Amino acid sequence: MSQKIYVFDTTLRDGEQVPGCQLTTDEKVMIAKELEKLGVDIIEAGFPISSPGDFRSVVEVSKAVTEPTVCALSRAVKGDIDAAAEALKFAKRPRIHTGIGASDIHIKHKFNSTRDQIIEQGVAAVKHAKKYVEDVEFYAEDSGRADLEFLARLTDAVIKAGATVVNLPDTTGYVLPNEMFERISYIMNNVPNIDKAIISMHNHNDLGLATANTIAGIQAGARQVEVTINGIGERAGNTSLEEIAMILKVHKTLGYHTNIESTMLAPISNLVSSTMRMPVQANKAIVGSNAFAHSSGIHQDGFLKHTENYEIISPQEVGVDKSLIVLTARSGRHALKHRLEKLGYKFEKAELDHIYSRFLDLADRIKEVNDKDLVLLMKETVTA
Amino acid sequence: MSQKIYVFDTTLRDGEQVPGCQLTTDEKVMIAKELEKLGVDIIEAGFPISSPGDFRSVVEVSKAVTEPTVCALSRAVKGDIDAAAEALKFAKRPRIHTGIGASDIHIKHKFNSTRDQIIEQGVAAVKHAKKYVEDVEFYAEDSGRADLEFLARLTDAVIKAGATVVNLPDTTGYVLPNEMFERISYIMNNVPNIDKAIISMHNHNDLGLATANTIAGIQAGARQVEVTINGIGERAGNTSLEEIAMILKVHKTLGYHTNIESTMLAPISNLVSSTMRMPVQANKAIVGSNAFAHSSGIHQDGFLKHTENYEIISPQEVGVDKSLIVLTARSGRHALKHRLEKLGYKFEKAELDHIYSRFLDLADRIKEVNDKDLVLLMKETVTA
Repeated sequence: MSQKIYVFDTTLRDGEQVPGCQLTTDEKVMIAKELEKLGVDIIEAGFPISSPGDFRSVVEVSKAVTEPTVCALSRAVKGDIDAAAEALKFAKRPRIHTGIGASDIHIKHKFNSTRDQIIEQGVAAVKHAKKYVEDVEFYAEDSGRADLEFLARLTDAVIKAGATVVNLPDTTGYVLPNEMFERISYIMNNVPNIDKAIISMHNHNDLGLATANTIAGIQAGARQVEVTINGIGERAGNTSLEEIAMILKVHKTLGYHTNIESTMLAPISNLVSSTMRMPVQANKAIVGSNAFAHSSGIHQDGFLKHTENYEIISPQEVGVDKSLIVLTARSGRHALKHRLEKLGYKFEKAELDHIYSRFLDLADRIKEVNDKDLVLLMKETVTA
Repeated sequence: MSQKIYVFDTTLRDGEQVPGCQLTTDEKVMIAKELEKLGVDIIEAGFPISSPGDFRSVVEVSKAVTEPTVCALSRAVKGDIDAAAEALKFAKRPRIHTGIGASDIHIKHKFNSTRDQIIEQGVAAVKHAKKYVEDVEFYAEDSGRADLEFLARLTDAVIKAGATVVNLPDTTGYVLPNEMFERISYIMNNVPNIDKAIISMHNHNDLGLATANTIAGIQAGARQVEVTINGIGERAGNTSLEEIAMILKVHKTLGYHTNIESTMLAPISNLVSSTMRMPVQANKAIVGSNAFAHSSGIHQDGFLKHTENYEIISPQEVGVDKSLIVLTARSGRHALKHRLEKLGYKFEKAELDHIYSRFLDLADRIKEVNDKDLVLLMKETVTA
């Protein structure tokens, strides 16, 4: 039986806190409604104590969506939790997300504290949040670099205190995928009441491994993923929602599924990119403008013979119109012939060789050859 | 003892064939010289048979660099191999890269061939290339979806024929990291003369897993990585050179090293991006403009207390001037105080609370608050 993976979208919190990505309340509400249509299970709408504007945004997102849980961030501090609860008062399914650093580096250099005090403060925060809402998620910041025995103790303690979800983030993007699998396996096997909560993955992409680490965490037992559209977020960003959704869809034999409507992935990527004015690079997986473009002769030839030679996802599955064949000096005869025939030209093989050689000269000069260039080329070739 | 991982850069071949990325010969030569300074071991300079311009580029790159091996691509076809050899005639360390599809999908739908014929054609190609150069790399295209028993037979056969490197690419970006580890382990354990050649990883990023798959391949025994600057390449691109180099540097205990001079990573990323007019997204790992930017209050506070709280790589290591603290409505008191003090302001705690609240109102409105905005804010606050 396929197991459900809960998709926790933090585009409006971890994504929105990035330089240049700040949104107005109206913009946040608009994106939240699209995230609801996309099928995310939880929307992290903001960090209410951080500013009056962000507080308002959490209030308005809470009013605007019905299906998804709405989550608000807080530190393990009473005032933060109170503000989160207040901002969530209109939410149909409210969740408070609270937590504290768990690695010795954070415990010592950020909190000037001890492991035992951290557990105490974490437990107190969860208990305080439970006064307001049933659904409380605890984050153990910098879990990726935390001592595992301590992390298991902390996880156990906050679950006892009432946490429904425990988020074990790789805050600095440090962990390798095989290590992540081992670390989450250790937690699954060494926390006595692990069956009372869901383990969540929130991985940063500093070494380009966020997606792989999140998949490794799922394989080890995590059942929630914290992701953003286009992978935006602090520094090198978070795990990309679109990558996780499509990996689980393409690799069905893994035995997991999400509630994501994949045909909305390209449109929502465009919406977030344009609203935040954060361009997505052409070679971004799934949603980059070149993700379904075939350019080399070898690839174009193989693709035209049988799309599965070079495509494991059809562009329609993620809401893109169709695969792109771009004609350049790396294109082969097959792609050129295909395009010319689409333009209505007919010719013999010997003619094609001549046209192809003229095409290459042109492409070496102008790089991309479009339909207008081809029509011109054909005119010159015929009259030459 | 740390083991050497050979860095095979294909920015000028797989990267350059991408829509919009075509380079002139002069541009290719300029980038090749920078790749030499960066310390790459092999430069794949182009695909000589594809166009006269690309042929010329391979000739000129061969003349321009001394240290790295220069490699030229060909299909397993005599004419391709002859052109590659001809284009490489000035190279001090020439390598011909030849190969053919290895998955049943490619064998059937691209070559209309059989497994045995594919082995025959591969062996013949390697033998033909060996007439020209000692160093012959064989690629088994779409290895990621190939039958493993057949892939082992093919690998064995081309090594017997003289291949010095066997490249087992995940051409469609399909494989998961744990599968890649198992697949490469299988090859290492089931090819009798595996010790006579180096296994190479060339992974595409269609599911966002190229980097993780390449690391998994290394962990299983691969000793060459085929990468590009900024991860450019067909569709969602190739494995990023900068990510692999920094993972092996940060995770020294893995026991691998490369010859890459990491302080050149940011400059060469900029050079490739601007020459190809291919923007790198802000949240790209290692080389994105936000890769070392800290924006949330929690992160800024932690970072200012101790940089290691949120940085596993210092920006100087990759040639970036310094970490960035960007002031927005998600910034906390600590970051604001730090910046104001740098601007020469002194104040009491009570005053800071007042300034901070005015700062948040401003940041909610204008999103990013720069030094000029702060000076203005302080003037208004003092006179208010």
